[in-house]
Amino acid sequence: MARMMYDLAGADPALRFSPFCWRTRLALAHKGLEVETIPWRFTETETIAFSGQGLVPVLVEDGTVVSDSWAIACWLEERYPDRPSLFGAAAGQAVTRFVNSWADSVLHPWIARMVVRDILDVIKPEHRPYFRESREKRFGTTLEAWVAEREALLPEFRKALQPVRLTLRGQPWLAGATPGYADYIVFGAFQWARCVSPFRLLEADDPVHGWRGRMLDLFDGLAGRAPGHEV
Amino acid sequence: MARMMYDLAGADPALRFSPFCWRTRLALAHKGLEVETIPWRFTETETIAFSGQGLVPVLVEDGTVVSDSWAIACWLEERYPDRPSLFGAAAGQAVTRFVNSWADSVLHPWIARMVVRDILDVIKPEHRPYFRESREKRFGTTLEAWVAEREALLPEFRKALQPVRLTLRGQPWLAGATPGYADYIVFGAFQWARCVSPFRLLEADDPVHGWRGRMLDLFDGLAGRAPGHEV
Repeated sequence: MARMMYDLAGADPALRFSPFCWRTRLALAHKGLEVETIPWRFTETETIAFSGQGLVPVLVEDGTVVSDSWAIACWLEERYPDRPSLFGAAAGQAVTRFVNSWADSVLHPWIARMVVRDILDVIKPEHRPYFRESREKRFGTTLEAWVAEREALLPEFRKALQPVRLTLRGQPWLAGATPGYADYIVFGAFQWARCVSPFRLLEADDPVHGWRGRMLDLFDGLAGRAPGHEV
Repeated sequence: MARMMYDLAGADPALRFSPFCWRTRLALAHKGLEVETIPWRFTETETIAFSGQGLVPVLVEDGTVVSDSWAIACWLEERYPDRPSLFGAAAGQAVTRFVNSWADSVLHPWIARMVVRDILDVIKPEHRPYFRESREKRFGTTLEAWVAEREALLPEFRKALQPVRLTLRGQPWLAGATPGYADYIVFGAFQWARCVSPFRLLEADDPVHGWRGRMLDLFDGLAGRAPGHEV
């Protein structure tokens, strides 16, 4: 059986430099599948016109044509279920740790930049000195200065949510067809903001806003009924 | 059976605003588990000293004490395998899409910022005008200008890799104990750079560098034997 993949090549046909094609080559190797890679160059759209689009990788197997590296990975997983899984059950937990790491190192610092000053107002007066001192040490400036630019920073903050937005383009929840821990990780950050601040983080037409609304409704409104701001 | 969770509260004890505690509360709801939440305030470290650390959430169940939201999620998944999975097999694939979205929207633009000019040198002369024009339109400037600050931007680029680095602190591969598609997604970006540019992206003592080296060795050196730079 012929299995072929159109693979972006440099002037040197041995140089294959597309990150998307590498995803597919490694996915094929993971599945233990042989493949003939065909060097393809920018602008050679006619060569792959049969795939109905103009980008590589394109995989051709037994008359089936699949393009787009993500679609190819999903197709391979379904076509070869008995071979090593690309997204196995153990991987579900492990990959969720990536979401956890992203939330801790990117999303939380961003949300703090937006609302951390407002936390002072909701905690007991006797805890305010601790909170102010520990956070000001962490941020290297006053809480007030840290959030002063939040309006101006909103576009950049919203751009940082692009991984969430892109994921929700393809599925209703971060964990797929139903909510899972990946959703709870990311939602926790938004609930944090909602609990302490009236500051509006998301625009109403943002898919992240719609997802957040569905999260607030989960489990009979567990999070939505909790004290917090309407944002 | 008593199940208790120490939960960060505001001056109003009903206000529970910790993103980490929300992760845990939703994970408990997902598993259909009742919990008594105990309001806890900043600086009350003695109250939870029994957990051996000073942060919430802390979950106490049948004499077992678990702290750290990630550890709690993993513990719940193992303790209640017959209840809805927090990281199920379907979620593995779905959550990997988050990694895909992160790579497409964050990692690739960063790597392009570092090496996109070098691509010109490895493609055929007749494709260079297409490549230059299409990319310069996308970036809104010349390829040369786009990469001019790459040395100065290296610290910020390396900081953007923090989700990968944090994940690798807890497991050898992004997909867990063995490599999976999540690894291939992220590695594809580094292989792209390695194929086209001698520019050194990673420091030798960075865990991401070590992981990248192990990726190069996979499948009998499939990626490592491919033409590219020693970086």
